[in-house]
Amino acid sequence: MWCGVEMKFNIVFIGFGTVGQGFAQILAEKRRFLKEKFGFEYDVVAISDIRKGSVLQENGLDLLKILDLTKKTGTVLGYELGQKGLSSLETIEQSNADIIVEVTWTNLKTGEPGLTHIKKSLATCKHVVTTNKGPIAIAYHELKRIAEKHDVFLRFEGTVLSGTPTLNLTIEDLAGTRISSVKGIVNTTTNFILTEMERGKSYEEALKEAQRLGYAESDPTIDVEGWDAVGKVTILANASMEGNIKVRDVERTGITGITVADIEKAHREEKKIKLLAEAWRENGKVMAKVSLQSIPLTDILAYIDGNMNALKMNTDVLGDVLVAGPGAGGIEAGYALLSDTLAINRYSSLLARKE
Amino acid sequence: MWCGVEMKFNIVFIGFGTVGQGFAQILAEKRRFLKEKFGFEYDVVAISDIRKGSVLQENGLDLLKILDLTKKTGTVLGYELGQKGLSSLETIEQSNADIIVEVTWTNLKTGEPGLTHIKKSLATCKHVVTTNKGPIAIAYHELKRIAEKHDVFLRFEGTVLSGTPTLNLTIEDLAGTRISSVKGIVNTTTNFILTEMERGKSYEEALKEAQRLGYAESDPTIDVEGWDAVGKVTILANASMEGNIKVRDVERTGITGITVADIEKAHREEKKIKLLAEAWRENGKVMAKVSLQSIPLTDILAYIDGNMNALKMNTDVLGDVLVAGPGAGGIEAGYALLSDTLAINRYSSLLARKE
Repeated sequence: MWCGVEMKFNIVFIGFGTVGQGFAQILAEKRRFLKEKFGFEYDVVAISDIRKGSVLQENGLDLLKILDLTKKTGTVLGYELGQKGLSSLETIEQSNADIIVEVTWTNLKTGEPGLTHIKKSLATCKHVVTTNKGPIAIAYHELKRIAEKHDVFLRFEGTVLSGTPTLNLTIEDLAGTRISSVKGIVNTTTNFILTEMERGKSYEEALKEAQRLGYAESDPTIDVEGWDAVGKVTILANASMEGNIKVRDVERTGITGITVADIEKAHREEKKIKLLAEAWRENGKVMAKVSLQSIPLTDILAYIDGNMNALKMNTDVLGDVLVAGPGAGGIEAGYALLSDTLAINRYSSLLARKE
Repeated sequence: MWCGVEMKFNIVFIGFGTVGQGFAQILAEKRRFLKEKFGFEYDVVAISDIRKGSVLQENGLDLLKILDLTKKTGTVLGYELGQKGLSSLETIEQSNADIIVEVTWTNLKTGEPGLTHIKKSLATCKHVVTTNKGPIAIAYHELKRIAEKHDVFLRFEGTVLSGTPTLNLTIEDLAGTRISSVKGIVNTTTNFILTEMERGKSYEEALKEAQRLGYAESDPTIDVEGWDAVGKVTILANASMEGNIKVRDVERTGITGITVADIEKAHREEKKIKLLAEAWRENGKVMAKVSLQSIPLTDILAYIDGNMNALKMNTDVLGDVLVAGPGAGGIEAGYALLSDTLAINRYSSLLARKE
């Protein structure tokens, strides 16, 4: 609705793995479309990654060139221009960034190094868009206060269901509802494995297939033991339901104990076994758990298979609302960062028009 | 994310039927919650309805009192204070409104009287929130230009899938994607009837049940002949996909020809008959149709039954995204107006903070 206003944002990537590169690729491919449709213009002025190195170029990097370089050499250091060797924090402090893209790895114990990156960014009045579950699961309320104090945005759509609108849906579109519970399939690896097992594979075969297709890490612990889902449901409980829970408060089951016999038994009972993440209200508190459940075929969540994820939200004024879409992928999670960036552009354009 | 800023909006209702009263009831019940959580405060300063009369009270009406009065007497004229007898246009012009709630009846031929109400509101620098399909289906691009020219918002979430986030989802959350097609179940009356027929009722019995429960009008033509779905898919084609189609361009089938034998045949083929609204791109244009289709049980839309509606959107970066939820109801559609109003509050609060 706010079109045609010209704004130029300086963007800095902290982390440049699959998701960061996914976002960079979307930005590069859609540059002209984003300018024409939303008046959104950008320069990527720095990239800092602990493995791939760091480059800062205040008048903008050639994004296609640096993507190509990263894919070919595994590092950004071959880029001919710019200042090399700054740490992530130095990059955040010394760059002329308007928006910091925090896409380092998820750490559900300490949130680091993302937590420090995000705090530093917000405190130096830079907007943050992130897909990093660690800092948001661990410190959502604190980070929200810091963002509000410095009048900047902290947006994190991609921490749950990758680019499928979920957090912005609950926080903005469903604003003013009271969400009494959420229930969903929020981990792609485990859902893919369970679906493959329904098709006859053993757990080990299904895991191998997931690894072959890139849906599972070589060490799949975080996914198959339910930790990833715990991180996501903690974010939903705190950000979408105003809860105040810790990762360690969440009861957790993984899928490693599941056998083909369990799947077959569920099938005979017209049920499907799914790894469900749930948050609900109880005695004035928000609670959450991740558990294996046999759900009846009358529940629409039974039809969310393979790499699809879904979240069902129970609200006071609408009853149940469901959203479903991809739950993982470099481009898919990369798109979440674009959705958040365009939201910042919408609000900022409005301010620019009024000035 | 923008909390604690105090803003007070003057709200005017043009139309005060089921949806208008639904929104008024939500506003009254959530008054304290909306102030505490979003810093959103309001006065309803006028109500004008062609059947229920008109009252304008610049320092605010007692909303609970006027809701009660309307339910008991069928008119607002018994309200002891305020100016009576203004027409809708006079109310729009003469009131101190910040937001006009346009909830008169849908007219898919001319868009009137809603179209004139909305134009007058926007041209006199008032934001508009509406659930009225007529004006948006007929004149979306023109109305958008008028809103932009006067720097006000026109929001219409409730024209499709009532309060289930759909238009704001495609326009804001999915901003920057290219939606190549949408396909969905967007009419509650027909979906309820088809579901009842699957359970063994004849078309006539199912229609009667729908009428008894308030899902169908005493003259059900607009729903069962597919016109309501045509209006909705026109809005999706133009507002979510930047198409430029007219209501009369949309190929249309209703459900009146369906027999129990058709339903049974589909069932034997592991299919379900659904009334689908679709828009897609073809030769650089957006096209749309409403048709009865037998869809396989492998399609998640086959599980959207009864009073649930759903829309599947195919996008470039995410593949398919689905949203499902209630498609009708006074409170449900009333909530769409709250969602839109809180969006206006978010943008306005931000401006207020910067001033």
